[in-house]
Amino acid sequence: MKYSDSGVDIDAAQAALRAARAGIRATWDRRVRSDLGSFGGLFQPRPEGPLLVASVDGVGTKVMVARLAGRLDSVGEDLVNHCVDDILVQGAEPLFFLDYFAASRLQPGMLEQVLEGFVRGCRANGCALLGGETAEMPGVYAAGEFDLAGCIVGEVAPEHLIDGRAIRPGDRIWGLPSSGLHTNGYSLARRILFEKAGWTVDTWRDELGSTVGDALLAVHRSYLEPVRTLWHALGRDALHGLVHITGGGFYDNVPRVVPDGCCARIETAAWEPPPLFRLLAELGDVPPAEMYRVFNMGIGMLLFTPAGVDPAVMARVDAVPVGEVVAGEEPVAVVLSP
Amino acid sequence: MKYSDSGVDIDAAQAALRAARAGIRATWDRRVRSDLGSFGGLFQPRPEGPLLVASVDGVGTKVMVARLAGRLDSVGEDLVNHCVDDILVQGAEPLFFLDYFAASRLQPGMLEQVLEGFVRGCRANGCALLGGETAEMPGVYAAGEFDLAGCIVGEVAPEHLIDGRAIRPGDRIWGLPSSGLHTNGYSLARRILFEKAGWTVDTWRDELGSTVGDALLAVHRSYLEPVRTLWHALGRDALHGLVHITGGGFYDNVPRVVPDGCCARIETAAWEPPPLFRLLAELGDVPPAEMYRVFNMGIGMLLFTPAGVDPAVMARVDAVPVGEVVAGEEPVAVVLSP
Repeated sequence: MKYSDSGVDIDAAQAALRAARAGIRATWDRRVRSDLGSFGGLFQPRPEGPLLVASVDGVGTKVMVARLAGRLDSVGEDLVNHCVDDILVQGAEPLFFLDYFAASRLQPGMLEQVLEGFVRGCRANGCALLGGETAEMPGVYAAGEFDLAGCIVGEVAPEHLIDGRAIRPGDRIWGLPSSGLHTNGYSLARRILFEKAGWTVDTWRDELGSTVGDALLAVHRSYLEPVRTLWHALGRDALHGLVHITGGGFYDNVPRVVPDGCCARIETAAWEPPPLFRLLAELGDVPPAEMYRVFNMGIGMLLFTPAGVDPAVMARVDAVPVGEVVAGEEPVAVVLSP
Repeated sequence: MKYSDSGVDIDAAQAALRAARAGIRATWDRRVRSDLGSFGGLFQPRPEGPLLVASVDGVGTKVMVARLAGRLDSVGEDLVNHCVDDILVQGAEPLFFLDYFAASRLQPGMLEQVLEGFVRGCRANGCALLGGETAEMPGVYAAGEFDLAGCIVGEVAPEHLIDGRAIRPGDRIWGLPSSGLHTNGYSLARRILFEKAGWTVDTWRDELGSTVGDALLAVHRSYLEPVRTLWHALGRDALHGLVHITGGGFYDNVPRVVPDGCCARIETAAWEPPPLFRLLAELGDVPPAEMYRVFNMGIGMLLFTPAGVDPAVMARVDAVPVGEVVAGEEPVAVVLSP
């Protein structure tokens, strides 16, 4: 089974974006300091001043799992953490967040629960929940369904901007553990676990040590605290690049920061993917390369450091060595286990 | 027919937001300079520095009309202009915009058309299209349907912030013409025109001088240029308050800026609502007060000025005198025609 079998075509959206590139760039002036494809957009209102870093996202069909489990209080937190991580990779710390919530019908308690998640996520990241919009749209959303989107704005001083340009052959690559699927691959996961295996959110699985629903709803981790810890212990320059493993997995995200002539060699044997990922691979008969393209496989954030970085410091944030940068034409090489 | 008959319950969302107020405020620190209920959220990264003004919104079920008409290239522009107007009322000019687009399936050309609208809107308002997210979510969205949300960030110098505090009895109230329904009241309008009258987007109506679809899809106006013209001609201080007539119409939006002890007295006899609004009132048998609560009735933005403002300058932007501020307990009095 591949991701496109589950009804999601990542390539179709990429093609549309390629077609729209020139138009999008035509809206930019010199204050826009990022190009298309970066995790967050960079905007510098005044020369020399700090850069604003902004990103918008959703949590994909994790919303359907939440609805099936009748637990809507965590998807908001997922979304805040996802957005925090998306701008953190450029060195930015969050300022504020705005949410959009739409449903076929506003059922009693629904919006309250969703807002609870946004509030918890914002508080934990020191980020102001500055605004939001709620819409009831029967007919647009399928009966009982809802969706949410969020936008974050953060800030980074120009001298602290991380864009991967510092990455060079010899750099070490470290992984920070994820809590689960985070917010990607839910269409394929639902197809495998619910349709193929015939399980429900309430099915208990010993290998997961939880119900299927609880495993799938584990909250997307914010990497703000561990990254701050490293900045404090090692200095800002010690992180040459960060990669948030989101949609497109290792294959599509790593190239977003690796400079020309460098290849990030990821040794997948370096860590053991948590049981949920092994279960998905086996039950869905998903080829290994597809697994690393769709899922984070237990690593939600990659960090690129100089070779000489103190492993004891990295261990303080549970960073696992997962590879190194070599000279090469391809930006990423995912070395799959035999 | 009332708005709640068409399946949208504005009050339910308001109740949920009231319940979440304390939690939302707990995410704020002194950098947040707005309270709940303002059009845009105000965030001041550094004391004395400029204020960032941010807002998130959607276009409601105007997306369904666009889908029925097979014309997806204008809803993006609607959304940009809506967002521009939402922060303009606080004196802010746009910096950048981010979009979220989700659909049951990405049909060929769909995303391209939607992006075209975002690009056109951003270019016209001098606003960078800084980022976006696209999601394919079969099951969440009804077959063939889609939704979009957008987030804008603008800026205003503290001395130019408009919060309505300058409004006083004797001030004149002016209306700037809307282009149509803008982005509000579509659930009720669809119910009246499509279900009750049995029309389609292709039905030609002489009184509209267009098809029903074209009338409903008229693009939400951006008031950035007329307001800039007034700032230039009259000085920043001449606009004591601005009100964007969005969801909740005159009754819910005017109180957002009128200070205690003042009452904005709107004389609806002062202007003639365009034919589309008259048609909706007659066909739907909608009581006048409900019309002014759901629709903009031909006025998309209200401007509050001192009594002595030069009417010739106001006429340059087609501003129509629609009322004045009196002393009173109720923030708004909509004087309906007999």
